[in-house]
Amino acid sequence: MNEITVLPPNVSKAEFARAIAEYRKILGNHNVIVDMERLAPYKKIMVPNPEQQHAPAGALIAESVEQVQAVLAVCSKYRIPVWPISTGKNFGYGTAAPAVPGQMVLDLKRMNKILEFDPVLGTVLLEPGVTYQQLQTYIDERNLPFWIAGPGAGSLVGPVGQSLERGIGYTPYGDHFAHSCGMEVVLASGEVLRTGSGGITNTKAWQSHKYGYGPVLDGLFSQSNFGIVTKLGLWLMPAPATYKPFLVAFANHEDIGKAVEITQQLRLKGVIQNTAVIGHALYALAWFARRADIYTEPGSVTDEWLTNFLKPKRLPVWGVNAALYGSEERVAADWKTVIEAFKDSGGMLLTQEQLGGDPAWEHGKGLMAGRLDMVEYGLYNWRGGGGSAWFAPVMQARGFEALKTMRLGKSILAEYGFDFMGGYMVNPRDMTLVIDLLFDRSNPAELQKAHECFGRLIREFGAQGYGVYRTNIAFMEQVADIYGPVKKIVNQRIKRALDPKGIIAPGKSGIRI
Amino acid sequence: MNEITVLPPNVSKAEFARAIAEYRKILGNHNVIVDMERLAPYKKIMVPNPEQQHAPAGALIAESVEQVQAVLAVCSKYRIPVWPISTGKNFGYGTAAPAVPGQMVLDLKRMNKILEFDPVLGTVLLEPGVTYQQLQTYIDERNLPFWIAGPGAGSLVGPVGQSLERGIGYTPYGDHFAHSCGMEVVLASGEVLRTGSGGITNTKAWQSHKYGYGPVLDGLFSQSNFGIVTKLGLWLMPAPATYKPFLVAFANHEDIGKAVEITQQLRLKGVIQNTAVIGHALYALAWFARRADIYTEPGSVTDEWLTNFLKPKRLPVWGVNAALYGSEERVAADWKTVIEAFKDSGGMLLTQEQLGGDPAWEHGKGLMAGRLDMVEYGLYNWRGGGGSAWFAPVMQARGFEALKTMRLGKSILAEYGFDFMGGYMVNPRDMTLVIDLLFDRSNPAELQKAHECFGRLIREFGAQGYGVYRTNIAFMEQVADIYGPVKKIVNQRIKRALDPKGIIAPGKSGIRI
Repeated sequence: MNEITVLPPNVSKAEFARAIAEYRKILGNHNVIVDMERLAPYKKIMVPNPEQQHAPAGALIAESVEQVQAVLAVCSKYRIPVWPISTGKNFGYGTAAPAVPGQMVLDLKRMNKILEFDPVLGTVLLEPGVTYQQLQTYIDERNLPFWIAGPGAGSLVGPVGQSLERGIGYTPYGDHFAHSCGMEVVLASGEVLRTGSGGITNTKAWQSHKYGYGPVLDGLFSQSNFGIVTKLGLWLMPAPATYKPFLVAFANHEDIGKAVEITQQLRLKGVIQNTAVIGHALYALAWFARRADIYTEPGSVTDEWLTNFLKPKRLPVWGVNAALYGSEERVAADWKTVIEAFKDSGGMLLTQEQLGGDPAWEHGKGLMAGRLDMVEYGLYNWRGGGGSAWFAPVMQARGFEALKTMRLGKSILAEYGFDFMGGYMVNPRDMTLVIDLLFDRSNPAELQKAHECFGRLIREFGAQGYGVYRTNIAFMEQVADIYGPVKKIVNQRIKRALDPKGIIAPGKSGIRI
Repeated sequence: MNEITVLPPNVSKAEFARAIAEYRKILGNHNVIVDMERLAPYKKIMVPNPEQQHAPAGALIAESVEQVQAVLAVCSKYRIPVWPISTGKNFGYGTAAPAVPGQMVLDLKRMNKILEFDPVLGTVLLEPGVTYQQLQTYIDERNLPFWIAGPGAGSLVGPVGQSLERGIGYTPYGDHFAHSCGMEVVLASGEVLRTGSGGITNTKAWQSHKYGYGPVLDGLFSQSNFGIVTKLGLWLMPAPATYKPFLVAFANHEDIGKAVEITQQLRLKGVIQNTAVIGHALYALAWFARRADIYTEPGSVTDEWLTNFLKPKRLPVWGVNAALYGSEERVAADWKTVIEAFKDSGGMLLTQEQLGGDPAWEHGKGLMAGRLDMVEYGLYNWRGGGGSAWFAPVMQARGFEALKTMRLGKSILAEYGFDFMGGYMVNPRDMTLVIDLLFDRSNPAELQKAHECFGRLIREFGAQGYGVYRTNIAFMEQVADIYGPVKKIVNQRIKRALDPKGIIAPGKSGIRI
């Protein structure tokens, strides 16, 4: 116990020791982690803040709902906060570490059962520790005619955390939160809430009907700290008879406006049904290249350099990644609409025939079919040094918004010498610009610069009316502020109503009691 | 003032008189209604309960957010509850009257501005008093390429109330709540919350991005009494190039199982994108016929009688109403899939060529294109006497569930001499059986029977694991109970946190402080 780096706030060492003894009785000695060495993976972060600002007091590994309930009773008794994680691989958003220090990480990775699968309705019921890879294997082994909808770097992470954090996937089921159905939530009181139809004795509709009766509570447990989700229903996409991914290549930086306008209309009309990603060249480059090997100038990669680098390789600055799904004849019909839509755009429409074998294309093609790979982890070699923070502002899916945010993002990043690498995730009406702020965490000056840069991005985008849809543990309070005082007050009132002692994840999304 | 039928609970006549004087100062004399004659439309109900159990203490007509805030301040001061309504035409669910008596109906029908329309994104921002007819007229006058998604009897009602109550429409945008985006909510405290992106100063994304940051609160204000929604964003469907509605006619009562199985698979695969309605013959008959003119036996209409009635007219017992939308070629491709799917089902696939001119078809065809008419109001002439209560249990979209619920519904209704008239609204994974319990409200014995029958339906379906997605003011508490004690407790905690005096709509969805 004398190795503890940080105690929970207002908890004495003696009280903490008593609590640890109680946790051990519930979970077994091995599942209560307070020694430095075993705690290390829970402390390691990639985001631009010093580790000690997110240092956990310890970690608890729970294997059942009953254990989660019992842990919460001890937390309540000693007022020790817990920070629940599912797989804890949420790298550029905070890995496993808490938003504010001194919490016990509540690790649910061993609650990893696929509890139910319905082959007619395409629904599953999952525990938080289930990974996308595990679900994919489950489907493959049984040869089930369903697709998952993994995120960009999906092998290690899981659908429960991803859906609760409202992460983005690239099939027509890419809005992961919207394709979840039915939660089981352990409240701070230990009570178990089932949302939607879940509270009905003998219901069979928990995973098929979302809303239930009266207020819909599911949204409350997304990106929040109002309860601990221990089961989540998920909808799977039926495998289409035909899948036709394509890329529309645009040669100029400013083409993003046109690319968004056309893509948005195809999304709105339902021709493109998946989350279309208009990816920037540098983002795709960084999956495979190290910065130092190709760029030796000082400061950020400039537009001009990038253009000159890409041109001889006949690579585009922007590529619209999208796909068609359905019967062969439907896909053929929709393909004609796509050709027509991009015909005078200056973009070049490319398919498997032209692109097959290109590694970036193969990754994108897999993503839009929900397949998993580790390609995007290559990003972390671009600069090296283990720093990553996703900046993800949301806006109308309009060309002028793309141009404005691209310019704003580039100019802020350039001030700090960081690169603009990311893409626009285009929905029918909104889109998210996702930028990975990559930096060398092992360099204290660069860590500090990254922290300042990220804060500037939030602030300056916020001043222009752009909120971000999700953020890392170092900036939760700042992002919550952008959404105005009433939202914060309401969040706080609900927090006090459901968790009056504030034992679940204080600081998550800027919410405390 | 001496004409008042019922005072708010625990409010003296003198206090009430003082409150009325304050309301008049805010709203003007004419907009504060306490005389019996002008209060009559707010008291009139169709649901199976005596009027006095839902008698309002008065009505208040507010025309602005500021007035709503000022009214709530007076309510808070005197602890007088308000029951907000938008258009108040929610006939079979309770019209304008409150769930428990002694509330001031807060009538928002004069807040009826279409505040914004975005022709690229297909979004609108509406006040609660806007009717579907008004929105349709707005679109028609400007020749805008968008469709609304009206409910079955949509001319008089409005999208704000319909979306908040999670009502059903029949285009691909038929899940009205899912196609709303961004709320403005006046809380009991008078604070104004904007959900999603709405709290961001200078945001343009309020009507295009739903979730915002942190917990998603929109669900809280649906079917609840946690605040008063004064603005709601709505998504409009782009008018498709081609629209092909069709009917699949099934001749036997038990064919519903097969009809559901095939329809569900087409919904899951996205071939049928709209809410498919498998309508029962008696429901459609009742739009145009009076019961006494065609049925003279005692008790409910029997399956046998109905079969014999329909056969010579070559009318089906069940009809799947669905449609295809998109480019001409896409619709042609999907049509082949539909033909293939129903080919060995025993159902007969019919289109405009065979059905054109048939009034039930014309109504269904219009509905699936979002058009409005008054056809379904014909239901109220089936028995006459002004009694109607919608019973709407939700289940997996499976054939066996359809068979089971059809039989259960018929048997309970038959015990009381009422008819089974309704249909299954089929989504990819869940479906709702919607039955209109029609009865003669002017006959006290029949009113009592209808009350008992409706309670039995909730109870017996509940015992089999079926909740209902929405219910009328007389049965809110009973339905809420089906969803279990934890949901009720959580609702209550949130209610106390957001409206500690319980001044907004006590009893709504079974929620009180």
